[in-house]
Amino acid sequence: MTTKPPSRLQSYLHRQLDPSAWPGAGLSTLNKCVLIIICLGIVAAVAESEPAIRDLSPVFFLYLNAAFCILFTVEYVVRLWSLGASQRYRGVTGRIRFALTLPSIVDLLVIIGLWLDLFLGLQSLYGTLLRLLRVLRILTLTRNSNWAIAIRLMRRAILSRRFELTLSVAFAAAILLLSATVLFVVEGDGQPDAFGSIPRALWWAIATLTTVGYGDVYPVSVIGKICAGVSALTSIAIVALPTGIMAASFSDVLQELRHTGPKAAKSND
Amino acid sequence: MTTKPPSRLQSYLHRQLDPSAWPGAGLSTLNKCVLIIICLGIVAAVAESEPAIRDLSPVFFLYLNAAFCILFTVEYVVRLWSLGASQRYRGVTGRIRFALTLPSIVDLLVIIGLWLDLFLGLQSLYGTLLRLLRVLRILTLTRNSNWAIAIRLMRRAILSRRFELTLSVAFAAAILLLSATVLFVVEGDGQPDAFGSIPRALWWAIATLTTVGYGDVYPVSVIGKICAGVSALTSIAIVALPTGIMAASFSDVLQELRHTGPKAAKSND
Amino acid sequence: MTTKPPSRLQSYLHRQLDPSAWPGAGLSTLNKCVLIIICLGIVAAVAESEPAIRDLSPVFFLYLNAAFCILFTVEYVVRLWSLGASQRYRGVTGRIRFALTLPSIVDLLVIIGLWLDLFLGLQSLYGTLLRLLRVLRILTLTRNSNWAIAIRLMRRAILSRRFELTLSVAFAAAILLLSATVLFVVEGDGQPDAFGSIPRALWWAIATLTTVGYGDVYPVSVIGKICAGVSALTSIAIVALPTGIMAASFSDVLQELRHTGPKAAKSND
Amino acid sequence: MTTKPPSRLQSYLHRQLDPSAWPGAGLSTLNKCVLIIICLGIVAAVAESEPAIRDLSPVFFLYLNAAFCILFTVEYVVRLWSLGASQRYRGVTGRIRFALTLPSIVDLLVIIGLWLDLFLGLQSLYGTLLRLLRVLRILTLTRNSNWAIAIRLMRRAILSRRFELTLSVAFAAAILLLSATVLFVVEGDGQPDAFGSIPRALWWAIATLTTVGYGDVYPVSVIGKICAGVSALTSIAIVALPTGIMAASFSDVLQELRHTGPKAAKSND
Repeated sequence: MTTKPPSRLQSYLHRQLDPSAWPGAGLSTLNKCVLIIICLGIVAAVAESEPAIRDLSPVFFLYLNAAFCILFTVEYVVRLWSLGASQRYRGVTGRIRFALTLPSIVDLLVIIGLWLDLFLGLQSLYGTLLRLLRVLRILTLTRNSNWAIAIRLMRRAILSRRFELTLSVAFAAAILLLSATVLFVVEGDGQPDAFGSIPRALWWAIATLTTVGYGDVYPVSVIGKICAGVSALTSIAIVALPTGIMAASFSDVLQELRHTGPKAAKSND
Repeated sequence: MTTKPPSRLQSYLHRQLDPSAWPGAGLSTLNKCVLIIICLGIVAAVAESEPAIRDLSPVFFLYLNAAFCILFTVEYVVRLWSLGASQRYRGVTGRIRFALTLPSIVDLLVIIGLWLDLFLGLQSLYGTLLRLLRVLRILTLTRNSNWAIAIRLMRRAILSRRFELTLSVAFAAAILLLSATVLFVVEGDGQPDAFGSIPRALWWAIATLTTVGYGDVYPVSVIGKICAGVSALTSIAIVALPTGIMAASFSDVLQELRHTGPKAAKSND
Repeated sequence: MTTKPPSRLQSYLHRQLDPSAWPGAGLSTLNKCVLIIICLGIVAAVAESEPAIRDLSPVFFLYLNAAFCILFTVEYVVRLWSLGASQRYRGVTGRIRFALTLPSIVDLLVIIGLWLDLFLGLQSLYGTLLRLLRVLRILTLTRNSNWAIAIRLMRRAILSRRFELTLSVAFAAAILLLSATVLFVVEGDGQPDAFGSIPRALWWAIATLTTVGYGDVYPVSVIGKICAGVSALTSIAIVALPTGIMAASFSDVLQELRHTGPKAAKSND
Repeated sequence: MTTKPPSRLQSYLHRQLDPSAWPGAGLSTLNKCVLIIICLGIVAAVAESEPAIRDLSPVFFLYLNAAFCILFTVEYVVRLWSLGASQRYRGVTGRIRFALTLPSIVDLLVIIGLWLDLFLGLQSLYGTLLRLLRVLRILTLTRNSNWAIAIRLMRRAILSRRFELTLSVAFAAAILLLSATVLFVVEGDGQPDAFGSIPRALWWAIATLTTVGYGDVYPVSVIGKICAGVSALTSIAIVALPTGIMAASFSDVLQELRHTGPKAAKSND
């Protein structure tokens, strides 16, 4: 059996739907539309979770979710069909191979999840998360655009200092554990609910060392306040270390970019 | 009809009132005075909004607002009149063209707004915002001064990394949405008022991930605290990313400045 | 009348007490002792302000304060006397000229303040502030040491970007005013105590935009929470801008230092 | 008595247990296992401190702690025995010399502490801290790996700017003291419990200037709020200064690294 040549529509849709087949910079017009529709879907899922909004018209949200399901399914099927224009994935076996690549499996799971959500009346949250996942997948496929360069620059800045960043995370974890242990000892007897064990004191330690400071738990004894004050002061180091590393790493990558030109930045990732 | 040559007063006022006609660096003496008067006007509008201050002497604030209205109107009219000394906007049609430029329309709207505010007794807040707008307009017109160089440097540092900054905003938005969705699921049943929907949980997520942490809402269940703790820790990344990008970008622009000299920094914006 | 040559003790004390006459790096041994004594004085003043500590032995703190007063007075008198070894300030008129220099006037006022504090029973706080002032004065006189280089580096990093830093302060002030005005409008009616005027709303705005977030006031209406959320997110920019400028400026000064050597850093301030 | 040559097992264990004898990069397989076991031990100690978890099965935790004690003791004894393969510490006197080095004393104290903890039923917290100490000790012994380079880079970035960092700590301390003193004066009479002395006001000052902001104490008078607002705004400088210094220092060290190559970074620490 010989493979018939791809139709014009097939070639057009393939270029439009497969980011890696798109000859221009950034995303194709159709993919931009898909991206906007997914974002609208996220907004809809967020709004639907609020009873005051959903109860205005539950039927509207039902239809909306059905529409999103149909759209995503159609997009998936059309993408599979348009693969006839691809050298690599043409034919039935090619399409099966394509459907078994990680991004396609993710897409399929998202679609199945959305259909289950629609019929079994699951929480709209899975819809939110699944759609968020699809946005990310499309964004990472962007190519040759300013966005793609920015993503690569940030990835490189983060990856090239991954050991230093991991160390500063380890340093933060050690300080967190130390603070929680000390406060457990000095405040545990006075406030057993808030500081009666190290895991409980860790809730306080995280709120303090990230400088969130809800104020639901805080030490009341003098010695507890002194220890907590010292902990709070080290929070500056916990923020300053990773920020300093990121700043230096971005600076380094930018400088490299200037010396070698943006072309090099595109290729040797 | 031949245009008569501009009078001396006209030329003087044109140079003084139009920042683009001012030959020196920075702002002219008259524009500095206008700037100070507007700032005093902002202080007056802020003070007037406080009942305890306004009630000391409502008449005083009435006269004060009237004085500001008259001052701004006179300044606007004189500026229009002094355009006779301008090559570009002289004559009646020239003045109309000038009045239809964006900054002039803003100025006119500000003046109309202040008069309406005075007679219709609107909230003093519009006065505050309108005056804030005028301060910004004057500041952006500053030229050749150290301030102008600083503004340009900051603009360039921000604009040259706009893709990276937008990406870190998108990253922050995704984390916000993810945190809100997770907390909605794990805490929604226990605290329906605070976490009963994703939009409600977003209020908690913003307070936590910007490290503001009012403490009006916070998770109480163990699993909720664990998820919130992880969210709180990612707040460091949300602050570190844009700060690192800004630092590297400023560094880059400063270095460019050194290699090409401040002259280049002034011209090739 | 001929000036008699300075005695050995005079020369020794002059070198020891006058930081500008000290030939070595950093502070002289005697000045280090003075610095430590002043720091102990600050600790004593802080401790004395706490009733639970002061009431243990009020007499002890009276004697302690008297001892500090006497020490500072003796130090001042001995410094004046040792000026006989100075070329510039020797003789009676020289000493009067020295006593009229700004640092000497500050020292004299500090001493007078401490004596008044002792006899009139003023709050110990003036003692704290006055002593803090003296610590700063001694520190700024340090020379040729690593500390002096660090101070100069920081001063230069801050001063060379003073326009950018002032602009980011102005930007922060504008955002503060804008946030307070918006919240005053949308929350003022619901919570007149917390948001009933722009000055009142500014207290909330400062707590939010510096990410302190006490949680004593926060918006409760939906529209208020949306506006507050947007404000809270801009807090990241308010922190990132000055931090980025400082980082770039330090980087710039460090690089200059490397190219020109530490000697240049010492001289051309 | 002649020293007999080390057995194969001895040589193997020596290379595996002594990080400085390990020829490869990073940690040996056995040391990685030890590291993982210690981390599990920390998790166990943290979990044990929580009554809800410990009461599930107190016997389980007793056996677990006993297992950790035996493991650490065996590891210590085997390490001592394997020293027969070392040139420097072979023989009885060599082992005694090795046992008297600082890391070995720390190890011994940790083991004794854990045994005492087990039999005397001390708080599990000492176990946590002691194990945390051992993790740190192992990590600092890592060599030639990417982790070791990252640790050295961070140490150098921090140490080379230690004077500037100390100055910014001193600056923060002065601002803290100043804020606390001012708030003590303006709010002390109204809220004696929270602001009745400088040490009490320091608790507020630390919570504010680190931007933690628990909200347990805050000024209520107008003048107190104005002073607190100014203090809160300076918190940005307190965070921006050390972060900026760290960023510049990391940048500087990275640049040095690029010019001289990673080899230089490894040697001239």
